[in-house]
Amino acid sequence: MKKNIGSVLALYPSPAVVIGATAEGGKPTWTLVAHVGIIGHDRILVSLASAHYINGYIKANGKFSVNIVDEKILPKADYAGSVSGAKTDKSGLFEYEKGENGTPMISDSPLVLECSVKDTYITPGFESFIASIDGTYVEENCLNSDGKIDYSVLKPVLFDFPAYEYLRTGDIIGKCLTLKEDTED
Amino acid sequence: MKKNIGSVLALYPSPAVVIGATAEGGKPTWTLVAHVGIIGHDRILVSLASAHYINGYIKANGKFSVNIVDEKILPKADYAGSVSGAKTDKSGLFEYEKGENGTPMISDSPLVLECSVKDTYITPGFESFIASIDGTYVEENCLNSDGKIDYSVLKPVLFDFPAYEYLRTGDIIGKCLTLKEDTED
Repeated sequence: MKKNIGSVLALYPSPAVVIGATAEGGKPTWTLVAHVGIIGHDRILVSLASAHYINGYIKANGKFSVNIVDEKILPKADYAGSVSGAKTDKSGLFEYEKGENGTPMISDSPLVLECSVKDTYITPGFESFIASIDGTYVEENCLNSDGKIDYSVLKPVLFDFPAYEYLRTGDIIGKCLTLKEDTED
Repeated sequence: MKKNIGSVLALYPSPAVVIGATAEGGKPTWTLVAHVGIIGHDRILVSLASAHYINGYIKANGKFSVNIVDEKILPKADYAGSVSGAKTDKSGLFEYEKGENGTPMISDSPLVLECSVKDTYITPGFESFIASIDGTYVEENCLNSDGKIDYSVLKPVLFDFPAYEYLRTGDIIGKCLTLKEDTED
């Protein structure tokens, strides 16, 4: 029996990611986000509260990195989401290297996207950056025998807003668009 | 050691959902989507190839439903993604009821969002519908003792594009923004 609980943001779980950008003096700054999305076959969306310290640098540089969070870096990623870069210098939080487009990428993240801002979608209190993907850096042990990313090995940490919890990525159920015969019952 | 595999859509996993809309003669039509997103605290995004049969009805009605897929309905959801509504009548695929805003909602889906289109973001070959949430219908056994949605019980089926697989939602790791003490090591 279903209950209507009203207008609830309930399209979860979503992957928790750390957004990185180059801030004052060339130092990196980081924040944790899980309100992300995929647009068409070539763009992603990252939705940030307008008050975030990092937003100004994303706009100034026109680029940012998206660092997938696994359980190993989750405590630091969680911390990155709990303090503002305006009050606390988070530049030393993660070891990092620069990607080809110049954004800071977390060395211990298993998968990093280098992104360039193409559009910004504004809603009250939020800036949602729509970006293209310049490069995709992935740990080689997270690639399967076909050279594709294996998320069941990478195991991104997932987020849900209603219970405000982190969840694990689980096992593979099966290949997409191959389950047709089961629909006849 | 990380390898740059180029511009790859790699922000996964994301929840697989069936989009529902009212089509010709008041009958429902359905399609499977996993390119979704969250914008601010009050909107979602659903990205569909422009050629989809359902898009015209989403635009004509200005509304659609988002039906979370669990393993029970996955074979039918997978089928909904494998045939076009233009060629095959999918109206009998799922048992459904109408929500308060009039969209068809899959009876066996554990969680359904009724949505109204607020904007459409166009990229080549794709229409990404940005929508507000009118109602959230959830199975009562998927609510925790605080009345919040428990995704570790609901277990949405997840999708990834690179390996083109469905994955399970796993267990709870912990509460958000409470892991700070672990960052000192």
